[in-house]
Amino acid sequence: MKHIIINKKILENNDNIAVKNRSAFKFNKVFTINLLGSPGCGKTSFLEGIIEKSKMNSKMSVIEGDLYTTKDAKRIEDKGVDVIQLNTSGACHLDAYMIDKALLEINMDKLDLLIIENVGNLVCPSAFDLGEDIKVTIMSITEGNDKPLKYPAIFEKSSVVILNKMDMIELTNFDLDEFYKDIYSINKNIKVFEVSCRNKEGLEEVMNYFFKEINKKKMKWLYEE
Amino acid sequence: MKHIIINKKILENNDNIAVKNRSAFKFNKVFTINLLGSPGCGKTSFLEGIIEKSKMNSKMSVIEGDLYTTKDAKRIEDKGVDVIQLNTSGACHLDAYMIDKALLEINMDKLDLLIIENVGNLVCPSAFDLGEDIKVTIMSITEGNDKPLKYPAIFEKSSVVILNKMDMIELTNFDLDEFYKDIYSINKNIKVFEVSCRNKEGLEEVMNYFFKEINKKKMKWLYEE
Repeated sequence: MKHIIINKKILENNDNIAVKNRSAFKFNKVFTINLLGSPGCGKTSFLEGIIEKSKMNSKMSVIEGDLYTTKDAKRIEDKGVDVIQLNTSGACHLDAYMIDKALLEINMDKLDLLIIENVGNLVCPSAFDLGEDIKVTIMSITEGNDKPLKYPAIFEKSSVVILNKMDMIELTNFDLDEFYKDIYSINKNIKVFEVSCRNKEGLEEVMNYFFKEINKKKMKWLYEE
Repeated sequence: MKHIIINKKILENNDNIAVKNRSAFKFNKVFTINLLGSPGCGKTSFLEGIIEKSKMNSKMSVIEGDLYTTKDAKRIEDKGVDVIQLNTSGACHLDAYMIDKALLEINMDKLDLLIIENVGNLVCPSAFDLGEDIKVTIMSITEGNDKPLKYPAIFEKSSVVILNKMDMIELTNFDLDEFYKDIYSINKNIKVFEVSCRNKEGLEEVMNYFFKEINKKKMKWLYEE
């Protein structure tokens, strides 16, 4: 099928630029997270929460991917963190080329952490490597526990899942046991954090995990020099 | 940019097959709904609800689009409605060609209504005409009121928005006034229904609206004969 061949070509081009981005991140020792999830799962609220907890504003930067609007970028800016808005003009995912262009606007010298908030979409963004160190997927309780089996690619490729809106679990028929069974059947190494961004619960554990991963990666980069 | 040209070609091919599907629906006098929305917004729960309310099981059929799994199709089958499962093997949307193939499995003679549940995705499915009469988008309160402005294409092209999970509104900061202001700024003719699929509230109004649209379309088809 033609469609598939075309996609392969797009992905090949993307992967070449992702390699370039990854080298730039390594050169500047910037740990990079590709933040994924459905529309309304709480990606921006999560970012707001961990900015507050981490107190590393000056060492952190955010790239906000949206089809249109600068709503999310403004929310991050209000928290005192440098932010680049990337509008895809309707495209359903960020690609490595867009990040390559955004990096021209970022002073990576002073950074330890770059978080790229992808377009709200549980399908397409998972196919595009941006050059990031890890993919983190946010999934909210209100989406239902069947999402890992229905959208496996994104969970297969993620190192971390943030299970958001835990404060609403009693109001839903979300089955935590089923969720854990399903998610580990797809990716047995995935790390799951249960949080409520609304009540700021569970975010410190996530940030501590990120700190550890940042330090591990820095040691690795130093060792490879 | 190559990417855009390729997409145009795919969309042109799609539109040609959509025309064919639309003719088949008209010939058989089957009103067709393309049901859209994010993962977990409640598309299948909505279907379960209106199947119960409509009592037109034998005159109704459902095509279930999913990347993988037959979970949703089983839920519809349990309600006594004929259902075709379409698995896209990872593709982020249904296209007219997939529907063309599915129609081979459906006896349209006896049908008044065909509902096509698209892949959970607020971006890509909106670009692909399937030959349907109307697009209906489900959006849940827990996704936040900023979605229409952030994902305008799908709301521009929809005739109806089902605002689901109204029972949870008190637990969120969803701003109904903002939502209505935004949605009408994108599409002033859009019809909005506030429902709770969990509590089966508001579904009768939706079904009555569908009945009216089905009858209007039947009259139009008769007139055109």
